[in-house]
Amino acid sequence: MAGNSFGKLFNLTTFGESHGVAIGGVIDGCPPNITLDLEAIQNEMNRRKPGQSSIVTQRKEPDEVKFLSGIFEGKTTGTPIGFIIENANQKSKDYSHIKDSYRPSHADYVYDKKYGHRDYRGGGRSSARETASRVVAGAIAKQVLKDIKINAFTSSVGDIFIDKPYQDLDFSKIESNAIRCPDESTAEKMIARVKEIRKQGDTIGGTITCVIKNVPVGLGEPVFDKLHADLGKAMLSINAVKGFEYGSGFCGAKMKGSEHNDLYNQDGTTKTNLSGGIQGGISNGMDIYFRVAFKPVATIMQNQDTIDKDGNIVEMQGKGRHDPCVVPRAVPIVEAMAAMVLADFYLLNKMY
Amino acid sequence: MAGNSFGKLFNLTTFGESHGVAIGGVIDGCPPNITLDLEAIQNEMNRRKPGQSSIVTQRKEPDEVKFLSGIFEGKTTGTPIGFIIENANQKSKDYSHIKDSYRPSHADYVYDKKYGHRDYRGGGRSSARETASRVVAGAIAKQVLKDIKINAFTSSVGDIFIDKPYQDLDFSKIESNAIRCPDESTAEKMIARVKEIRKQGDTIGGTITCVIKNVPVGLGEPVFDKLHADLGKAMLSINAVKGFEYGSGFCGAKMKGSEHNDLYNQDGTTKTNLSGGIQGGISNGMDIYFRVAFKPVATIMQNQDTIDKDGNIVEMQGKGRHDPCVVPRAVPIVEAMAAMVLADFYLLNKMY
Amino acid sequence: MAGNSFGKLFNLTTFGESHGVAIGGVIDGCPPNITLDLEAIQNEMNRRKPGQSSIVTQRKEPDEVKFLSGIFEGKTTGTPIGFIIENANQKSKDYSHIKDSYRPSHADYVYDKKYGHRDYRGGGRSSARETASRVVAGAIAKQVLKDIKINAFTSSVGDIFIDKPYQDLDFSKIESNAIRCPDESTAEKMIARVKEIRKQGDTIGGTITCVIKNVPVGLGEPVFDKLHADLGKAMLSINAVKGFEYGSGFCGAKMKGSEHNDLYNQDGTTKTNLSGGIQGGISNGMDIYFRVAFKPVATIMQNQDTIDKDGNIVEMQGKGRHDPCVVPRAVPIVEAMAAMVLADFYLLNKMY
Amino acid sequence: MAGNSFGKLFNLTTFGESHGVAIGGVIDGCPPNITLDLEAIQNEMNRRKPGQSSIVTQRKEPDEVKFLSGIFEGKTTGTPIGFIIENANQKSKDYSHIKDSYRPSHADYVYDKKYGHRDYRGGGRSSARETASRVVAGAIAKQVLKDIKINAFTSSVGDIFIDKPYQDLDFSKIESNAIRCPDESTAEKMIARVKEIRKQGDTIGGTITCVIKNVPVGLGEPVFDKLHADLGKAMLSINAVKGFEYGSGFCGAKMKGSEHNDLYNQDGTTKTNLSGGIQGGISNGMDIYFRVAFKPVATIMQNQDTIDKDGNIVEMQGKGRHDPCVVPRAVPIVEAMAAMVLADFYLLNKMY
Repeated sequence: MAGNSFGKLFNLTTFGESHGVAIGGVIDGCPPNITLDLEAIQNEMNRRKPGQSSIVTQRKEPDEVKFLSGIFEGKTTGTPIGFIIENANQKSKDYSHIKDSYRPSHADYVYDKKYGHRDYRGGGRSSARETASRVVAGAIAKQVLKDIKINAFTSSVGDIFIDKPYQDLDFSKIESNAIRCPDESTAEKMIARVKEIRKQGDTIGGTITCVIKNVPVGLGEPVFDKLHADLGKAMLSINAVKGFEYGSGFCGAKMKGSEHNDLYNQDGTTKTNLSGGIQGGISNGMDIYFRVAFKPVATIMQNQDTIDKDGNIVEMQGKGRHDPCVVPRAVPIVEAMAAMVLADFYLLNKMY
Repeated sequence: MAGNSFGKLFNLTTFGESHGVAIGGVIDGCPPNITLDLEAIQNEMNRRKPGQSSIVTQRKEPDEVKFLSGIFEGKTTGTPIGFIIENANQKSKDYSHIKDSYRPSHADYVYDKKYGHRDYRGGGRSSARETASRVVAGAIAKQVLKDIKINAFTSSVGDIFIDKPYQDLDFSKIESNAIRCPDESTAEKMIARVKEIRKQGDTIGGTITCVIKNVPVGLGEPVFDKLHADLGKAMLSINAVKGFEYGSGFCGAKMKGSEHNDLYNQDGTTKTNLSGGIQGGISNGMDIYFRVAFKPVATIMQNQDTIDKDGNIVEMQGKGRHDPCVVPRAVPIVEAMAAMVLADFYLLNKMY
Repeated sequence: MAGNSFGKLFNLTTFGESHGVAIGGVIDGCPPNITLDLEAIQNEMNRRKPGQSSIVTQRKEPDEVKFLSGIFEGKTTGTPIGFIIENANQKSKDYSHIKDSYRPSHADYVYDKKYGHRDYRGGGRSSARETASRVVAGAIAKQVLKDIKINAFTSSVGDIFIDKPYQDLDFSKIESNAIRCPDESTAEKMIARVKEIRKQGDTIGGTITCVIKNVPVGLGEPVFDKLHADLGKAMLSINAVKGFEYGSGFCGAKMKGSEHNDLYNQDGTTKTNLSGGIQGGISNGMDIYFRVAFKPVATIMQNQDTIDKDGNIVEMQGKGRHDPCVVPRAVPIVEAMAAMVLADFYLLNKMY
Repeated sequence: MAGNSFGKLFNLTTFGESHGVAIGGVIDGCPPNITLDLEAIQNEMNRRKPGQSSIVTQRKEPDEVKFLSGIFEGKTTGTPIGFIIENANQKSKDYSHIKDSYRPSHADYVYDKKYGHRDYRGGGRSSARETASRVVAGAIAKQVLKDIKINAFTSSVGDIFIDKPYQDLDFSKIESNAIRCPDESTAEKMIARVKEIRKQGDTIGGTITCVIKNVPVGLGEPVFDKLHADLGKAMLSINAVKGFEYGSGFCGAKMKGSEHNDLYNQDGTTKTNLSGGIQGGISNGMDIYFRVAFKPVATIMQNQDTIDKDGNIVEMQGKGRHDPCVVPRAVPIVEAMAAMVLADFYLLNKMY
């Protein structure tokens, strides 16, 4: 109820603040007898972790997952998988400047009003550091999903975007550049743009596209737990996300029915896929694809006026090492959340 | 788990197929001692019901709500509110043409594959008729919310859109025209466009914008149940929805942090509101606003090839009386879902 | 959250007050493609309904279930099954004597304090009439469970009890007498006792034993949702229940480990079954059996002093037609709740 | 869904196996701004831990709780409280004798059948070691509950029982002896009995009574989440529990209504309290009291025949240091579970 759990059958509960002792989580409902590929899990962690390239924050966090339960002799036991990730950087920083002041477009103000007491260091619970726990669970969910393949990538940074359909992209190139854009010439422009923005002490938004292949027909539960509704909630729960669209999305709202309808082939596949692989909230076997919008990171290296607890105007100066663009590090988070949503419906579908 | 319930503390479970005996629902968690305005509830039903204007489907459904429990001497008792809405039109239609064939971009195919047995008449459970039950619950949720005011309106039809910020609109004009657009000259253009589309036997998509005022600070539960994540899921669970964005939305993904940050006034309000009234998933007291994209209705009055159960090609001809544009009737549904999400967090917030 | 839903995968939500328009419920999660035996459902209703024999209340309620959805051409569709049971007796009674007074050992007082407003007629929501909806869902759950057989029976009334192990009883005799006790000579004594008590204007308690056969190994989810924990909650949620024990129960607390341990046969069955078919919260394939204690009905046909809303002493005189002993009519309710618990775990177990 | 979470608003998820790296849990929903008494928490841990007296297992586990999140500067922040308890004894034991064999009346067999793969060391997840995490959460729940006082004590061991009503007992004496029985002469007999049983290499069952004082009127949610139904489930989820009764319990099933009804005083209290402080599932302000039955520990220091995975008969010899009677160490667990149930309803009641 307090919002720190996600999923029904494949359930993740997370805990932890940015600068506490550790963050972590409990995965409840992972099926037994899965031989976990621990290296694959750590690899997902590395894709999210700070310091991985020159265009992300240079903070150092090893982000090593320590599993505490639910795995025995390399295989899942069906019991809850508890894990922690220690906060290496926890003691070093000076956060006195945000102790009593509210950073603009951050959660400081609302946390203070809602809870009356908060761990202000590095944003505490509202920090995107929490998403590291999601990546652990997502990496395990991917292993539950077997043949279902989830690929997310950076599709735009500011006003630079990939102008090709996803079918023309080579997903094996996603990890070949720091911005995680499979279109190499666009990737170069994006990277240049991020570097320029960082030089200005500013930040920039972007979008991530996610494509899911080999989805069986039948995942999703009408009427409230439509597959795309749960995917949407999952994405919107990621820090900095402002929008979600799937299939034709907002463009679909401009179209006519005669243009938008996906006609069937005799085998039940469709000739077009404006539906985005989902009809009536249930997967139809075609590719699922959706797009997620991220706002620019709120912490900028420029001076801004803000207020303190007592309503006094104070000058806030960006400090520390922050991401000029959150999108490349968010790619594995998008995949992780998608994997958890699918794992949930995948397990539930066994009931039918 | 099977997806027919929505909400935690203020919970709605719906049942019913388009052409069964009745649809209805149970609202569990409505606080006691609320003197219900039953006329206001029926009024919301009338905003959604077919046949209300010349640009919507001409089907006839009185859509009268019959309350069965939870209300005594005009006031809620805190016990579950059961209600039904009889299906007036249930017996008359001939649905043999869709019994064994799958309408393109409808849920027929996936329901058949998932469940193996379905009530095909009028779409059965996948019909938007189910949303009538949501409007009942939403109308009650609005009464729980007291001072919080929710206004949705049609912000675009096809490529015709309101080109003003919502602050320049007069919400009292929303109900003054059939398309539910508060900007009168735009409304006229939209209505003309819908009539033209209908004449072509076609349909068209559109968007709805929703603005919520007088929201107290503190609604929303990090990290997974962010206020906008639950709003997003609520909207995406409505039939035909393809996208959701709040605050700056997809435009925010093109912006720089220095442009996007909302600076504080001394009283904790913000000078701008690109955050859309939500920071870190928690309401900050500013207006909440979001936009929802609806695809064009899939049932068109034109012939289309499709397949039957056995994979044979069959010609499908649009029949019956359908909406050329779903958006005007979806306005009260968007409000209803928003009201339920807010009521949930409103009640939960008493814990703090 | 407000307590009107039961079950996870096989979920029932009930609504309705004793003297409102109707009671009813929604079953969400019933698998598709089950050919429902509607007669079997009504038969369960008849086992619970008033007026069925000379030793139960002589009120008249036909208790006919009207299904509104989720069933098409005789088979479940996997969509929610909505149903109502009209309250035939709703208008006739005079309840002014309990409008402002609190019947001893009834829920009147606590409902008034908790909710501030209640439907006092016939106990309203706190009336055991609500359990009729449970019997509907239980009767359907039984059909989901196929080979699993659930038999409950009256094992004691006051200090009269069956002094044989259940293995020596013929369950086909349960329905052969009004008290639902399969041991005929004990049944006669019980019936005589109830008649005597009724003549005194008094009421009497009793116990029900339930035996479940053909349970597959593996139902139940450690650590909190142990099979017997969910069975216990289910039973304790029935009106008038004061206790639950399974297997050796309270007697087991007096035993030594060397006496209590169930030793294995080579096929995994056990030589004894003090475990009651459940080990570590998971069914082990042996018979599940448990016992449920019911207090005497609180409404007696004798004068009692009580208080009104303002704390004044008032004399309360038992009126109307009430059960002298609730146990025979509770037998199908016990079975219904057991069936729902098992159906839940039965469906969940497909995940493994 | 997989059963490792308990509670709605005050929610605990636990993880961990007896001989894994660590056990622990996440408490989600603890209100903010509570100054935690960490010593009181550790004190509850010490009441449960092994080696605390001469009549419990002599295993050594320091059972120190390490909090990882949710507490800042000594006060709760409203964010999830993650904690771990390291397994000090994890590496040392030889469990080869139970690797492939099933201990009688233990969960080994059913875990193997259900999951196909289990951590057999010390019982793994089915070990009562898991309850240490519950004690942590319960100790925090007690601090949420403020004035509500929960006292559990040993009321019987084998056939030795306290023959006084709880009102005649001095709860301050509960901790004064190793068996946790407030009646000193009975305590002596119980302790002597346990020592005798241990000498025989055997074990013995017992009961715990729990009394809750200062409960406000209104806790509990009809109809399924009755206060006593949730208490019952909570107790039945504790290892080795076979039965639960509250108020008059199984004795009430022998009584007449005229004997059993609790008549009101003018202030709304009742002259008697056979209801056990709960009417219609809702607390009425009187003391809540209930009794819990524990079977004898299944591990005995005597030889028993059992079977291995392949159905071969093998001799099983009790090894290690086990409790001859689980009851004294279960007292704080009963209190912990009761505290969690009450905290849940206590928070929920703010809605009304």
